[in-house]
Amino acid sequence: MAAPRTPRIPKPRTPKPRVPKTAQTMAAGQREISISEFFTKNRHLLGFDSPAKALLTAIKEAVDNSLDACEEAGIPPRLFVEIRPDRPAKLGLELTSVEEPESDRNGGKAKAGGRSGNGTSRDERYRIIVEDNGPGIVPAQIPRIFGKLLYGSKFHSHKQSRGQQGIGISAAGMYGQLTTGEPVTIYSRIAPDQPAHRVRLVLDMKKNEPNIISDEQTIWEKDHGTRIEITLTGSYKRGQHSVDTYLQQTAIANPHLHLTYKDPKGDIFEYPNATAEMPVEAREIQPHPYGVELGVLAQMLADTKCRNLSAFLKEEFCRVGPKTAEQILETAGVPERKNPRKLVQDDIQKLLDAIEVTKIPAPPTDCLSPIGEQLVMAGLKTGVEADFYTSVTRPAAVYRGNPFQIEVGLAYGGQLPGDELARVMRFANRVPLLYQASACAIHKAILGSNWRSYGLQQSKGALPSGPLVILVHMASVWVPFTSESKEAVAHYPEIVKEIKLALQEAGRQLQRHINRRLREKDAFKKQSYIQKYIPHIGDALQEILLLSDPEREEVITVLTDTLERSRKL
Amino acid sequence: MAAPRTPRIPKPRTPKPRVPKTAQTMAAGQREISISEFFTKNRHLLGFDSPAKALLTAIKEAVDNSLDACEEAGIPPRLFVEIRPDRPAKLGLELTSVEEPESDRNGGKAKAGGRSGNGTSRDERYRIIVEDNGPGIVPAQIPRIFGKLLYGSKFHSHKQSRGQQGIGISAAGMYGQLTTGEPVTIYSRIAPDQPAHRVRLVLDMKKNEPNIISDEQTIWEKDHGTRIEITLTGSYKRGQHSVDTYLQQTAIANPHLHLTYKDPKGDIFEYPNATAEMPVEAREIQPHPYGVELGVLAQMLADTKCRNLSAFLKEEFCRVGPKTAEQILETAGVPERKNPRKLVQDDIQKLLDAIEVTKIPAPPTDCLSPIGEQLVMAGLKTGVEADFYTSVTRPAAVYRGNPFQIEVGLAYGGQLPGDELARVMRFANRVPLLYQASACAIHKAILGSNWRSYGLQQSKGALPSGPLVILVHMASVWVPFTSESKEAVAHYPEIVKEIKLALQEAGRQLQRHINRRLREKDAFKKQSYIQKYIPHIGDALQEILLLSDPEREEVITVLTDTLERSRKL
Repeated sequence: MAAPRTPRIPKPRTPKPRVPKTAQTMAAGQREISISEFFTKNRHLLGFDSPAKALLTAIKEAVDNSLDACEEAGIPPRLFVEIRPDRPAKLGLELTSVEEPESDRNGGKAKAGGRSGNGTSRDERYRIIVEDNGPGIVPAQIPRIFGKLLYGSKFHSHKQSRGQQGIGISAAGMYGQLTTGEPVTIYSRIAPDQPAHRVRLVLDMKKNEPNIISDEQTIWEKDHGTRIEITLTGSYKRGQHSVDTYLQQTAIANPHLHLTYKDPKGDIFEYPNATAEMPVEAREIQPHPYGVELGVLAQMLADTKCRNLSAFLKEEFCRVGPKTAEQILETAGVPERKNPRKLVQDDIQKLLDAIEVTKIPAPPTDCLSPIGEQLVMAGLKTGVEADFYTSVTRPAAVYRGNPFQIEVGLAYGGQLPGDELARVMRFANRVPLLYQASACAIHKAILGSNWRSYGLQQSKGALPSGPLVILVHMASVWVPFTSESKEAVAHYPEIVKEIKLALQEAGRQLQRHINRRLREKDAFKKQSYIQKYIPHIGDALQEILLLSDPEREEVITVLTDTLERSRKL
Repeated sequence: MAAPRTPRIPKPRTPKPRVPKTAQTMAAGQREISISEFFTKNRHLLGFDSPAKALLTAIKEAVDNSLDACEEAGIPPRLFVEIRPDRPAKLGLELTSVEEPESDRNGGKAKAGGRSGNGTSRDERYRIIVEDNGPGIVPAQIPRIFGKLLYGSKFHSHKQSRGQQGIGISAAGMYGQLTTGEPVTIYSRIAPDQPAHRVRLVLDMKKNEPNIISDEQTIWEKDHGTRIEITLTGSYKRGQHSVDTYLQQTAIANPHLHLTYKDPKGDIFEYPNATAEMPVEAREIQPHPYGVELGVLAQMLADTKCRNLSAFLKEEFCRVGPKTAEQILETAGVPERKNPRKLVQDDIQKLLDAIEVTKIPAPPTDCLSPIGEQLVMAGLKTGVEADFYTSVTRPAAVYRGNPFQIEVGLAYGGQLPGDELARVMRFANRVPLLYQASACAIHKAILGSNWRSYGLQQSKGALPSGPLVILVHMASVWVPFTSESKEAVAHYPEIVKEIKLALQEAGRQLQRHINRRLREKDAFKKQSYIQKYIPHIGDALQEILLLSDPEREEVITVLTDTLERSRKL
């Protein structure tokens, strides 16, 4: 966030004599750094570096969690998202009456907050609300899920999901607390016969532990679901990087989602679900033996419950049956019955070598849930006005043992501006990526493709220009983001390669379309040309051959037909 | 790291019936994630996503630490860096005999490592060695400094330094351990009258704690210093992103450094120090009141040892004297004598508001240590062959309360390729940034500047093209990197703005140079033109006016003079 002023500073005067440090004095300075201290100072790593981005990130994290929860529970998601200016004036617009008293508190302090000196006085205080109809959260889990960084269920599981790090939503709360001092409020109910819980908490930044302010049963109209409210300093903007764009694109990539959005002005937008059918559920898989590293394998061997190696291989990895296990152990020359905990490093190395030379089937792909070519196309059509659409879903591939799948959609022509750079829509596990485009493997792959060969213009080291929208989706059990804020995909060669292949497939289809258009233009020119001159030829012939007018007309029709026919061939 | 193969995968068969999860089943999956587990899986965040990059990052982290330590201790740094292929064949080339036995161990296992199945069989095992003449490390501190993530002395201090997070070097060791299973070896000695210590350790990835394998006193020829050895799977490449480039650029940005580098072939490169004088030492400062946030202030109030508010303000912040403190507290309407721990949130908010409206001098800048215009220029001249050089050091500015300073150097023409995009050299606190250029605020600022107006070519959304090298250095007490790997600077508006201003200053000087060149070309053309035609005019006049040869010659000289003179005006 910007400092209230960034004053110019005079150059330093003559430096005072230096006091050299010694190993001892340095040792005194050594300290442990808590993960929450770290992320407070490196807040931009989590996507909270500007007030506008902070507002988006907080909503994004909450929405991602809601969608994941609904899908895991097999519930067609209905989400409500609200951005409420945190001012007394707006107090009338309460959605539910449950937290009226609290809002009064905010209301009371809002004015102070409005002109608060926390480095963001130019920005507003907003209360963001995200409510879902998901399975809810067991009361005992609420505090740590929302009040502790690096706590969650997705990090250790091998399946496609939006969240993966167990940082996002707690970080959003931490940011709100940092900028407004307000605690996070969570409502949750897991079943009609269970009471709803209302928890208010802050995060202890020194210990990275939740600090519960209040935890009470409350009345809630929902049978089951979760609602989170965070008050934060943010700035609401429209345009490419806005919450509005994020929600539109979320609707494009999640046709099964029904979304209601209330913006700061109080205007309400409905995004009804395009399909009643839930996406194919991504299933959890065990890690694949390929790509597992020495250190990781050693850890797995130490942690396993299995009593012998062959059991270990079959249980802890996917695609390893009795035969494969036997083969691996034979190649490694390690006894089947051996206790995994008893392996020395040389044996582990041998095991790895054996795995590498053993033929093991590729990992299953039902851990992935791509959008699908039809729905990508459909999504583009709802979101973009063009006169040509195409989409490609690649078969799944693997990087570092993680299955992933690339999808590409192109929209061309129509209302799109012809003289600007192509517009790019990036998605990872159905989540729109709005920031850090240039850091993203998707961006790199687009720059690295030769769009000239598809009939577009492209200048050195730049995006193609023309009336074009490029949509790219990466689905994976583990998307390697370039930072915790999950805004850009890291440049793993296998991933860049797959994206390029998908772009090429789609690009060739676009090229066919563009060529067809050129041919048509060409033909049309010929035609009008013909229509223009034939009459004169007719007149000429009439003069030379002294034809009657009907004869001339006949000649003209004959000529026209012939030429028309010749053109058609 | 790449999986050994990335097989194509058949589309999944008909999905099995879904087993919806409930809040309870989900709760069972919730787990805490240790910071070391997190970074193991997100290794690319630390710069270990490819073998080539891993090799560079490991060396970078070690060199950064050595330089910081030497400067803090006021010792002109002499560094030795070696990349040794970890193969028995190389055993002869030991530098010191100290770790002979250990090398035998590696030697013994190297072959296995060479064809190891840890997903990097295409890559080599290397042993990297970085040795300095710094103050050394107190034995008790060695384990946690090298064997625990998020442990260090720089995170909490407000002064310019290369390291800041307490992650880098432990992460390098962790990566080595992950890919080769080898422990990290550290030698350290703090004084001639103290014994040297040799410690071998691994990192417990579940607990994020060091696991000491051996810690013994040993013989070492150095009086004081530190030496670290890490065995890792890497890939040694030349070119833009190579270790060689990194070391060259490090020499450019650190003219006081004497560096000896032994590459994997055993070739030795010397980079003697260009100056005997140490850079002005960056001094530690307290945070500046501007830009401090509610949450942070609350934490400071809770932690302070001061008994009353006015003392708190004077002690914990820079640039706050008795007068300013009094003024702030008066504006806030909070009693001077009040105990900081007793403040309620409303008071804290009032305090912030008061700070914002109180005029407080800008932070001191002796916490910064820029390279300086002369040395930037000198560095460019040693590194780049061009025929025009210029450099600019901006006055210091502030973002989020952190002082920072931008320096820019340009080299143009000469041997540089005229038809390619400009080459960019990025530095943060004297450390070369080789990766993620496009994610960097420096890159953004360069793209955002209008180079056409300086007489260069630049196509939409691309770097300028021409025989140009652009050097940008950011010096700050806290560089906001876009990831823990510290490869790119985050897009804080104040930072981008300052870089642009520096580029403009330098750009205008470049423009003057280019224009002068054009004028000279032009003049030269005129001159040759004159020389070409005057003789003919002479002949013509001779014919018309029947002049004698001497007369003709005279006319010619006169004409030449006149025109020469007129051209000069």
